[in-house]
Amino acid sequence: MDLNGHNILGSSFSSEGTDTFQAVNPSTGEILTPQYHQATAEEIDRALTLAVEAFHDNRDRSFQARAKLLEQMADAVESLGEELVERVVLETALGEGRVKSEQGRTVKQIRMFADLIREGSWVNARIDQGRPDRTPSPKPDIRRMLIPIGPVAVFGASNFPLAFSVAGGDTASALAAGCPVIVKAHPAHPGTSELVARAIMETVDASPFHEGTFSMVYGERPDISIQLVEHPSTCAVGFTGSRKAGRAIFDAASSRPEPIPVYAEMGSVNPVFLLPGALRERSDTISEGLTQSVNLGVGQFCTNPGLVFGIESEPLERFIQVTGEQVNQVPTGIMLHQGIRNAYKQGIDTFQQVGNVEIAAQSRSGADNTGTEAPSTLMVTDADTFLANPRLAEEVFGPSTLIIRCRSAGNMESVAGALEGNLTASIHGTDEDLAAHRALVRILEEKVGRLIFNGFPTGVEVCASMHHGGPYPATTDVKFTSVGTAAIYRFTRPICYQNFPQEGLPPELQDRNPKQIWRLVDNQYSKESL
Amino acid sequence: MDLNGHNILGSSFSSEGTDTFQAVNPSTGEILTPQYHQATAEEIDRALTLAVEAFHDNRDRSFQARAKLLEQMADAVESLGEELVERVVLETALGEGRVKSEQGRTVKQIRMFADLIREGSWVNARIDQGRPDRTPSPKPDIRRMLIPIGPVAVFGASNFPLAFSVAGGDTASALAAGCPVIVKAHPAHPGTSELVARAIMETVDASPFHEGTFSMVYGERPDISIQLVEHPSTCAVGFTGSRKAGRAIFDAASSRPEPIPVYAEMGSVNPVFLLPGALRERSDTISEGLTQSVNLGVGQFCTNPGLVFGIESEPLERFIQVTGEQVNQVPTGIMLHQGIRNAYKQGIDTFQQVGNVEIAAQSRSGADNTGTEAPSTLMVTDADTFLANPRLAEEVFGPSTLIIRCRSAGNMESVAGALEGNLTASIHGTDEDLAAHRALVRILEEKVGRLIFNGFPTGVEVCASMHHGGPYPATTDVKFTSVGTAAIYRFTRPICYQNFPQEGLPPELQDRNPKQIWRLVDNQYSKESL
Repeated sequence: MDLNGHNILGSSFSSEGTDTFQAVNPSTGEILTPQYHQATAEEIDRALTLAVEAFHDNRDRSFQARAKLLEQMADAVESLGEELVERVVLETALGEGRVKSEQGRTVKQIRMFADLIREGSWVNARIDQGRPDRTPSPKPDIRRMLIPIGPVAVFGASNFPLAFSVAGGDTASALAAGCPVIVKAHPAHPGTSELVARAIMETVDASPFHEGTFSMVYGERPDISIQLVEHPSTCAVGFTGSRKAGRAIFDAASSRPEPIPVYAEMGSVNPVFLLPGALRERSDTISEGLTQSVNLGVGQFCTNPGLVFGIESEPLERFIQVTGEQVNQVPTGIMLHQGIRNAYKQGIDTFQQVGNVEIAAQSRSGADNTGTEAPSTLMVTDADTFLANPRLAEEVFGPSTLIIRCRSAGNMESVAGALEGNLTASIHGTDEDLAAHRALVRILEEKVGRLIFNGFPTGVEVCASMHHGGPYPATTDVKFTSVGTAAIYRFTRPICYQNFPQEGLPPELQDRNPKQIWRLVDNQYSKESL
Repeated sequence: MDLNGHNILGSSFSSEGTDTFQAVNPSTGEILTPQYHQATAEEIDRALTLAVEAFHDNRDRSFQARAKLLEQMADAVESLGEELVERVVLETALGEGRVKSEQGRTVKQIRMFADLIREGSWVNARIDQGRPDRTPSPKPDIRRMLIPIGPVAVFGASNFPLAFSVAGGDTASALAAGCPVIVKAHPAHPGTSELVARAIMETVDASPFHEGTFSMVYGERPDISIQLVEHPSTCAVGFTGSRKAGRAIFDAASSRPEPIPVYAEMGSVNPVFLLPGALRERSDTISEGLTQSVNLGVGQFCTNPGLVFGIESEPLERFIQVTGEQVNQVPTGIMLHQGIRNAYKQGIDTFQQVGNVEIAAQSRSGADNTGTEAPSTLMVTDADTFLANPRLAEEVFGPSTLIIRCRSAGNMESVAGALEGNLTASIHGTDEDLAAHRALVRILEEKVGRLIFNGFPTGVEVCASMHHGGPYPATTDVKFTSVGTAAIYRFTRPICYQNFPQEGLPPELQDRNPKQIWRLVDNQYSKESL
């Protein structure tokens, strides 16, 4: 495919803006063609106008048709094969293996949403049958289900150029819900974005769906993002990225004349707690798992474990030593772009400026001609220093972790209680440890969206029970997940029909339950017809 | 009970502030004793400190215990009997019958939430069982359920002094979810609030629950409301009231360092659409129903039908005439307080200043010595005038309605498309009308939370399928309802446990499913154990 660098507005290419940018190969510093045209206000407006048309038009398409569209998109993204993998590697420096598995996950996610809406129970149908003879007043017939919220703006993430980007979980779940999507491509991988977006554009074109079902705009300037969020036709926002950008988008959305929901996933330090029994029994295995998890994808995961807490002891010292030996051996990796690498370096420097934070190990740096190399770094401090310096609890995006020596179980609980909201917390322990540290678990339940026992937070399972979310500042909405089938609920809202005749109701709410979906009927779950 | 006018902070009374206010009897203008002490910042802080303690403490109480607490509260509110009814009538001028039925509804709502949590399936448990033998990587065991969000601030509404106030749906659903509640009493009925709050306070005191489970503060000044919303321990807000106050609270909550959700229900004009068949077949019945609905409780309902659309025709003119005759006969009522009555009067005046809005009927005013009487008012205009004057689409809180003559079905659709978000829309028609006006239904589905066929929006059924919510400005969060069992979801959030041993899991997520609740297990609903 010849990349053209044009915004995709429904089935048309558009390059009205003269303000352009280009991708950079982080491994070589080479500037990559083509030039990408940043969207103008008019182009954003056109994308939204098309999206509104699509929103209305698509409500008449069946769930079956929508599932088919998603499956065809999955096929199209899968078919991009090697060409896509090469461009991703070129723009991100991520390993080919990682990129291929991310492509697999992306395709699998889209198919998962197709299955979800084909089955149909996700609409959460609820029926309370009327009783005209009730006294003193007749009981009306009330039926409720979820419908799509409207056009959704999706902001692609830099660290998952496929699974959290153009055809990622936000886009798939919004389309599954019935919402048109306008993607704002991440400027660090515009070529990857174009390849995927053109595959989707062609799929929509070949389908019965309105062209406005999908658009994609380019923008490096923050004002373009804000324009998209502030457009009166935008009804919700999906975002994965930095806290600063996420908060700016949230603030813009909340200040609109009609505020709209923002589902921003803004990263996390994902604390790990090492309980005494586990350190005694399998310290080396945990070291190995931690080193792997910290360095996966050069540490560029929202679920990267950035803090590790243990209680002062000989086993903890041994753990620090063994982990350090492993970190020293990690091959130094190349980050997604210079900006991220500079922030990583600055983060490590900031930690160093705090007294009592020592670098216990660091992988060897190369020549670093491109300014994108990030040495894996293991740091150690104590709980008092950690509590006295809130900066140490802030995310350093990249392959580093900070081990904190706590004086006691109680001290560990105090430290846990001082943490901000996070996506995950992990506890390593024996069953006895877990029973003895119920207080710690209780504290962590208030701090995170996912609690992991004897495992690491990276590698987020995509399933119905997954909750990839957490209290602020991990996300801007603690109620919702951006991974797994429940992600669809971000882009829906309930509607309720009172005393409607059968023919006036959507099939999901009709007595005969033609789709045989699960429904809550008079407070009982059932798949039966009425 | 001797009213004392003191803030209720857990199990203590507190009156540190010297700034006081008193209730006024809207029927006589009489100032009612006692003086109510507006809460100081320290008192608000104490309420929240207690609430945080209670939040932690109460997580160890069973759902059974929580259900019992709710039932005891319901009994306590019920036992207030005549004393409560008298004070409500004194402070609100609402009729005794209405107040008694509202008391019944309030008690019923609390019991409904007790039943909901006793049954237990509301936690939306989801389980994906692990498969350690999956390749290339083992599938983890993931289990997810809802937990309480934290202390909730509830703002009592003036128009439902019981059902949307101290022991109303917000309080009941928050307590049911496991969240401590701090009520900000509505300043128009502080005595009513005190009676109910003291009944709750005594119930909590006699229970195993922490005193901080419930507090109530008084405040007439807006800064007291904002202090409550901005307190770092407040985790969510339930509000029913005006758009101005709701938006101010939403803005304060969104601008916090840690933003929190605000579930503000801010009123609605609840458009009614009269389709031709219905006007031909049963115009007079609709007139009667409309007049009743508009004047119920002196029009002081969020679901009051403020706009009525019909297509120019002889039957519409007859409808206007007959409705006008009925409105002329309506006994002029007394509103909740002077402020609301003045706003009502001003609203009618504003409509009058628009050319082409005629008053078709108005009930007779009395002497109105108290400045609280509100004559029922029927106004008529045409679609062009309505479209050209957006003020006509704004809520006039009180017993008035505006009939809009549309030129055609298409014109009616245009007008519907120009409406803002609303709680409800009602359609009167034959089954044939409904089939012929699918386009109108589609438009209204985007505008409202509840669509009513051949009925009126007042009288909101309290059940699992009810959705009392709608797009902004009807509410600040289109996803949630403030009436019915689903209201509990405003005050919960998911948490997910990965690879936890059985004993480490909450009962709802354990294999043996001790409560026999409905769970989504490997994508299938089931009540079975695993």
